[in-house]
Amino acid sequence: MKFGQDHPRRLIHSFKVGVALVLISTLHHFRPSFYAFGDNIMWAVLTVVVVLEFSVGATLGKGLNRMLATFLAGGLGVGTHCLANLSGKKGEAVLTPIFIFLIAGTVTLMRFSPRFKVRYDYGLIIFILTFCLVSLSDEKESEMLEIAHERLLTIIIGSCIAVMVCICICPVWAGEDLHNEIAGNMEKLADFFEGFSDEYFNNSDTTHVVQDKSFMHRYKSVLSSKSSEETMAVLARWEPCHGKFKFHHPWKQYLKIGNQTRVCAYKIEALSAYLLHSKQNPHEVQSMIQESCTIISSECGKTLKESSLGVRHMTKSSMPNQHVANAKNAVESLKSVLRTNPWEGADYVDIIAVAAVASLLIDVVDCIEKICEAIEELASLARFVPSQLLHQGTVQPISKRDDSIHVIIIDEITPRLYE
Amino acid sequence: MKFGQDHPRRLIHSFKVGVALVLISTLHHFRPSFYAFGDNIMWAVLTVVVVLEFSVGATLGKGLNRMLATFLAGGLGVGTHCLANLSGKKGEAVLTPIFIFLIAGTVTLMRFSPRFKVRYDYGLIIFILTFCLVSLSDEKESEMLEIAHERLLTIIIGSCIAVMVCICICPVWAGEDLHNEIAGNMEKLADFFEGFSDEYFNNSDTTHVVQDKSFMHRYKSVLSSKSSEETMAVLARWEPCHGKFKFHHPWKQYLKIGNQTRVCAYKIEALSAYLLHSKQNPHEVQSMIQESCTIISSECGKTLKESSLGVRHMTKSSMPNQHVANAKNAVESLKSVLRTNPWEGADYVDIIAVAAVASLLIDVVDCIEKICEAIEELASLARFVPSQLLHQGTVQPISKRDDSIHVIIIDEITPRLYE
Repeated sequence: MKFGQDHPRRLIHSFKVGVALVLISTLHHFRPSFYAFGDNIMWAVLTVVVVLEFSVGATLGKGLNRMLATFLAGGLGVGTHCLANLSGKKGEAVLTPIFIFLIAGTVTLMRFSPRFKVRYDYGLIIFILTFCLVSLSDEKESEMLEIAHERLLTIIIGSCIAVMVCICICPVWAGEDLHNEIAGNMEKLADFFEGFSDEYFNNSDTTHVVQDKSFMHRYKSVLSSKSSEETMAVLARWEPCHGKFKFHHPWKQYLKIGNQTRVCAYKIEALSAYLLHSKQNPHEVQSMIQESCTIISSECGKTLKESSLGVRHMTKSSMPNQHVANAKNAVESLKSVLRTNPWEGADYVDIIAVAAVASLLIDVVDCIEKICEAIEELASLARFVPSQLLHQGTVQPISKRDDSIHVIIIDEITPRLYE
Repeated sequence: MKFGQDHPRRLIHSFKVGVALVLISTLHHFRPSFYAFGDNIMWAVLTVVVVLEFSVGATLGKGLNRMLATFLAGGLGVGTHCLANLSGKKGEAVLTPIFIFLIAGTVTLMRFSPRFKVRYDYGLIIFILTFCLVSLSDEKESEMLEIAHERLLTIIIGSCIAVMVCICICPVWAGEDLHNEIAGNMEKLADFFEGFSDEYFNNSDTTHVVQDKSFMHRYKSVLSSKSSEETMAVLARWEPCHGKFKFHHPWKQYLKIGNQTRVCAYKIEALSAYLLHSKQNPHEVQSMIQESCTIISSECGKTLKESSLGVRHMTKSSMPNQHVANAKNAVESLKSVLRTNPWEGADYVDIIAVAAVASLLIDVVDCIEKICEAIEELASLARFVPSQLLHQGTVQPISKRDDSIHVIIIDEITPRLYE
């Protein structure tokens, strides 16, 4: 039961499966007029068990696939059965296996096509299954049509019960999950950048003695998030409009943001290797770049936090761009520090590790700019509304020449939501 | 048909699905004594369609899951049905939905447990399905037992046909695929290192005018290979011994190698960013580290190529370790070059990008050493045989002081295979 308590949504899903099956068994017990199908009722049970998935997108996708595939394969099956019947008893014994071989082989080949694979894989399996069952049926044609009709109806009833239960009881939307995951991943990267300079330049001892640094490793889950994001984007496309998401919400754009976020996470992975050996570098070598690098890292963190907030609340804001501009200014001031030949006389072996951190941080700013561009594209595609700040915060630009750090405080952000 | 020609294995799989269904339809036509099951024969067709998967591991896993789950759920279903029957007609109408709700809910919750999820997910679905079908059945107990028995037999026949066809006609082993994928991924990284110094130090113009550099990007597929490797490792554990793989082949160790390979690929991703801007760096800054970096990069490439060859042929060899030692020597000579203050007077803004490359390459050597350690662990777990070189190649150690590059040629490696 422990893992059920960890995730209330899982507990609710288990409850929903139970409810859907109790609904079917009640129908089964009372047998209302629309549900008097003899032996075929088992198809309704089978459909509910197989179709009812965790997210609405998956349930709708499977339900539609199942209904459409049963309908098409049933029609084709009855057709080939009639054709085989025309050629007599012996002809039928030869023609049926040939039809099955050809259709099943072709459809299996179609399952490998990337285009069908992502959205219609389940439908293609059901197509083969239904076609074979109809072809191998011993019934006469008139009975067959009736059975096919009944089976299709039971599958529609089963699918409808599954979809109804899925949507009516605490629905889990794949699209919303994707939306939150993309925003959450940016926050994870932001956590790293906000902790980076403290950790790298050993400022942490001055504030807290013992600190939990686990938040610095949250970015690691972003490295391998590609496949789960892609799955959610496919499922999201089956979903109708819900909450703040319209019907043609640009789910594919989320994947672009996800890809850019991952590219940034790869750079972080490279940066994090230098955290381990940061104490081996002489402090005087590190301290030359400390100020600019601290600003770059914290501005990157702020950009990501703001962008993530913007995506989460579906609002447009100029704040991320201002933070990016600050980070770029800090890059310029880092470069001007470097031009003064700050490491005169130091050992180059010590220098290269510190130089690598500086260089990677400069690289990271480009990455983050690309994330912002992808988000802006999403904002215009999905028509995000401009954010209205109640306690308007201001970001003071950090000029190249003025090297003092401006503290930027935004008390509270109350975006006017889209809903 | 195009995508079928690209991958003969897919074409063969489609053929196999056709063959399995023709076998079932032939059984269906002739009805031998062991296959006279009335209406329940459709379960055999259903089983073949659903169980026959691309790899042997997946087919065996699904087949065993299906048989075991049907057996257990059938037993439990008959048991609860009898229990419900004891309480009369009205009691049954109340008790059956309660049983269904409890069992289906609990099993659905179990599906979320990571332990069950990876290996028994399909079995748990079939368990819910079978339990519901048996519980909702209208038959008397004696008939029910007979139906349950017949259904189990048809499912066993269907599973056996699927497994037989899968193993007998050009089998695809998930374990072998994982084995080749891990070796192939190392080769992809090796390609990058072998091309890196030419590309970075602009030596390429001297040899070929137009060169296809696409091999430099092959490593990108390694970045997101985690989930496919994990799936294959799970499927591989269902497979019996085959070819050079024994029954308890250490499939989990492959995942460790895969993780280390991915860590190396993340570093490569960071390195590759510097390739784009390599021409902006003044040649005199780059040339200081060219010699050592070229050796490090090429020795890393050779280590990975040799390791990959060793894994592919399941042989132990000391060659990778010798190449790692060479790379380490080159790191030391790079450090001694750096100690001479080579970039006196150059612009530090140019220096940091070059220094970052040097630093990342030093980092990469550690990564590759970890890959070699993981492979050695695999070699001892899976009892790789020492490689017997027919035309024995020698790797001349590159000493710290002697900076000339030794060309290491191994004409041909003919390992005595395990088979």
